[in-house]
Amino acid sequence: MSEEQGLTPRAKDFSAWYNEAVMRAELADYSAVRGCMVIRPNGYAIWELMQGALDRMFKDTGHRNAYFPLFIPQSYLQKEAEHVEGFAPEVAVVTRAGGKELEEPLVVRPTSETIIYASFAKWIQSYRDLPLLINQWCNIVRWEMRTRLFLRTTEFLWQEGHTAHVDEADAERETRQMLGVYRRFAEEWMAMPVITGVKTATEKFAGALRTYAVEALMQDNKSIQAGTSHNLGQNFARAFEVQYQTAAGGLDYVWNTSWGVSTRLVGGLVMTHGDDVGIVCPPKLAPTQVVVVPIYRSDTERAAVGEVTERAVRELKAAGLRVELDAREGMKPGAKYYEWEGRGVPLRLEVGPKDVAKGQVFAARRTGGKAPIPLAGLAAGVATALDEIQAGLYRTALERREANSRRGVSKDELIAMMDGPGGFAYGGFCGSVACENAIKEATKATVRVLPDAEFRSPSPPARCVWCGAASVTEAVWAKAY
Amino acid sequence: MSEEQGLTPRAKDFSAWYNEAVMRAELADYSAVRGCMVIRPNGYAIWELMQGALDRMFKDTGHRNAYFPLFIPQSYLQKEAEHVEGFAPEVAVVTRAGGKELEEPLVVRPTSETIIYASFAKWIQSYRDLPLLINQWCNIVRWEMRTRLFLRTTEFLWQEGHTAHVDEADAERETRQMLGVYRRFAEEWMAMPVITGVKTATEKFAGALRTYAVEALMQDNKSIQAGTSHNLGQNFARAFEVQYQTAAGGLDYVWNTSWGVSTRLVGGLVMTHGDDVGIVCPPKLAPTQVVVVPIYRSDTERAAVGEVTERAVRELKAAGLRVELDAREGMKPGAKYYEWEGRGVPLRLEVGPKDVAKGQVFAARRTGGKAPIPLAGLAAGVATALDEIQAGLYRTALERREANSRRGVSKDELIAMMDGPGGFAYGGFCGSVACENAIKEATKATVRVLPDAEFRSPSPPARCVWCGAASVTEAVWAKAY
Repeated sequence: MSEEQGLTPRAKDFSAWYNEAVMRAELADYSAVRGCMVIRPNGYAIWELMQGALDRMFKDTGHRNAYFPLFIPQSYLQKEAEHVEGFAPEVAVVTRAGGKELEEPLVVRPTSETIIYASFAKWIQSYRDLPLLINQWCNIVRWEMRTRLFLRTTEFLWQEGHTAHVDEADAERETRQMLGVYRRFAEEWMAMPVITGVKTATEKFAGALRTYAVEALMQDNKSIQAGTSHNLGQNFARAFEVQYQTAAGGLDYVWNTSWGVSTRLVGGLVMTHGDDVGIVCPPKLAPTQVVVVPIYRSDTERAAVGEVTERAVRELKAAGLRVELDAREGMKPGAKYYEWEGRGVPLRLEVGPKDVAKGQVFAARRTGGKAPIPLAGLAAGVATALDEIQAGLYRTALERREANSRRGVSKDELIAMMDGPGGFAYGGFCGSVACENAIKEATKATVRVLPDAEFRSPSPPARCVWCGAASVTEAVWAKAY
Repeated sequence: MSEEQGLTPRAKDFSAWYNEAVMRAELADYSAVRGCMVIRPNGYAIWELMQGALDRMFKDTGHRNAYFPLFIPQSYLQKEAEHVEGFAPEVAVVTRAGGKELEEPLVVRPTSETIIYASFAKWIQSYRDLPLLINQWCNIVRWEMRTRLFLRTTEFLWQEGHTAHVDEADAERETRQMLGVYRRFAEEWMAMPVITGVKTATEKFAGALRTYAVEALMQDNKSIQAGTSHNLGQNFARAFEVQYQTAAGGLDYVWNTSWGVSTRLVGGLVMTHGDDVGIVCPPKLAPTQVVVVPIYRSDTERAAVGEVTERAVRELKAAGLRVELDAREGMKPGAKYYEWEGRGVPLRLEVGPKDVAKGQVFAARRTGGKAPIPLAGLAAGVATALDEIQAGLYRTALERREANSRRGVSKDELIAMMDGPGGFAYGGFCGSVACENAIKEATKATVRVLPDAEFRSPSPPARCVWCGAASVTEAVWAKAY
């Protein structure tokens, strides 16, 4: 792709468009190491804003950050039977270190339940130590066969919450609470609507009792699992002997939860809001929320315009906005617009001599639409525009999702939908693994969630979409990333 | 160590004291993986405050964060001859992944020059792309034989700055600037005085042209290298073909710098300020700056005291202070004091019925001294106390360092000093590797730095402390961590 060509249109090849949009915005780059990406400053800045917002939400709900080793003894992974079965095929293994073969190979963490609960076993003595509420920000390695920038990479960055509780009720409350945090983050920060629900046994985390997820529909009508929250039951507590003295004086295993989101969210942001020009950042997660571009034809004009742009930038910065002044010489405004649009900056302020004369700036929204904002009350006017862009992005994404969701689908409709446009298909489900597998085989769609009450259909389907037996639960099918 | 026994006194066994102080404050814990530590929430909270302050300083000097792969192809490490010689013996190597033997083993990053400059080669075309100013926060693995919590661990957390410049002067300016940032951080945030200077060729970073460092004297009179800043010259640019088109139209290799500090700083903080009771946090890096403890003997007293403590906590939080209320029932005030002292909380506010009657709280400083602070103007009074504690910690550490520094030492004095109390020994140096090695052999002391002008002796020594030949530079020797 050259600058002149523009991006491959989404409608023509969504996958090509995605890669080009990511590259054009300089969010990430390929590396020499198979499946490992480089997160470039523009991409990392989005991740930092995501981290900041999530970290505050975690701390507000009583969690504290800690850091556990990158390496996990191979024997640890094997202590929980389902867990090792799920992760063993995709681990990277250190067999040599300090010039010698290791006696016991070390696994590069694919997730940290095992190494963390080994510590919990040392730290937890009695019910007074519970709940223990820990979070970790770190890198993770899973040897993936087919990788995509941000969406599926051999190494990725994430956070993993790990908690221990006295009983199932408290663990379930925590699992649900963190699912709610992810939902709120997706909706309020990413402007990305999600549906929430529980995973089927086939799709749950290896070693969990129950897995809940937030799922979002991308513009190509495939779903992305944007965050998961697991009630781990007492599975890991038994494997790692995490016991506590109960208030009554007895001895019991703790109940654990774990929950995580990753740099995959950056990919979700791109695929939710991007257009054929490139990425679009929701203002709350935009590293640059506003770019100010001076427009002039002479030195006299430049002086007059320059004074206004610099004052505008100062005022917007003072108001806590993330703003850049693009005063590069020898570059036409159009070339600057092109660059900032590709980076997804939500609002561009153009300031020319006529604007100066009228006491205004001209505001162009990345989402479309141009209007002047008076210099008097500039910060407030800009803040309002950003709020409207944020709200508009969410509304547009929500409308698109609803337009691409079908309820009460029949078997034929499900097949036709997944063979054609895709989207969220709501249907009855008998709950059998046989039907689940048959549907996956026939349509490549999986059960994304058994939706929470809020997302269920007003009149729930009576029959399984596949076998016609009595439906025990409504399910949402989609092809997924 | 049990709660009753207290810590091993520093004077008796500094090393034992250090481990006990770290464990008592719950900063870190050992893990099942050789040499890898767990950073517990109390320790990680200090690291987060360090990160926050440093990150702002990096951004204020124009740097942007990015993230590069954990894994480095073995062939990359070999491209710079000195570099591979320095790091090859201590790397951990992934040889198996996804169930298969890898064709080319992957090294877990011991530092990221090679993988980062491979990306720089793609990103840098012309002088307009320079300087390129990048920083990365990440984990690092070096297979160490003898490990100590925070000070030397197989895995540690750090930041590594990596920059590219048009010429030597600009690279040198950057190298020096970041050394200055580290000095300012050590002095202003950690209350830890440092000396700055350049390393000898023997002690420099493997692959660098020149290495500068900040060095701090610990309470056992051993030095800690608290941060390094390297002018890498064009060594890596040549190895990775990082070339740019000059303003004049020619082609040249960029000049690189790299610079880093790590979780080792937490160990430096402990060994600079700790006392026989435990760690002492400088207020600016204390996760909890103030703890408020209500004291009462009856329900009536509890009600009166509780009202005041809660109001005090609200007021201090509103003033931006990090404050905790310790209202735990069934625990005596003395037991609470003991716990918070061990965590190094700089200021404790005790509030009893008499204090309420007098309209005051009673403030006990972790560094010694008790005095009332009136409730009217509480936040200002507390802020002043914290400022005084911060300044006092720095002054005490500086006085200790100066009391343990000797200038113009003779050979016998150097030997006696390193055989005895330790400390910083300033002496003449002929610059020969022979003398440097002989001194290390005889005294176990190394040249920490060739000090910058500001730290040099008023009348520089004329002769080498060891061979008596003409001194070409003053040097500072010490035993080191």
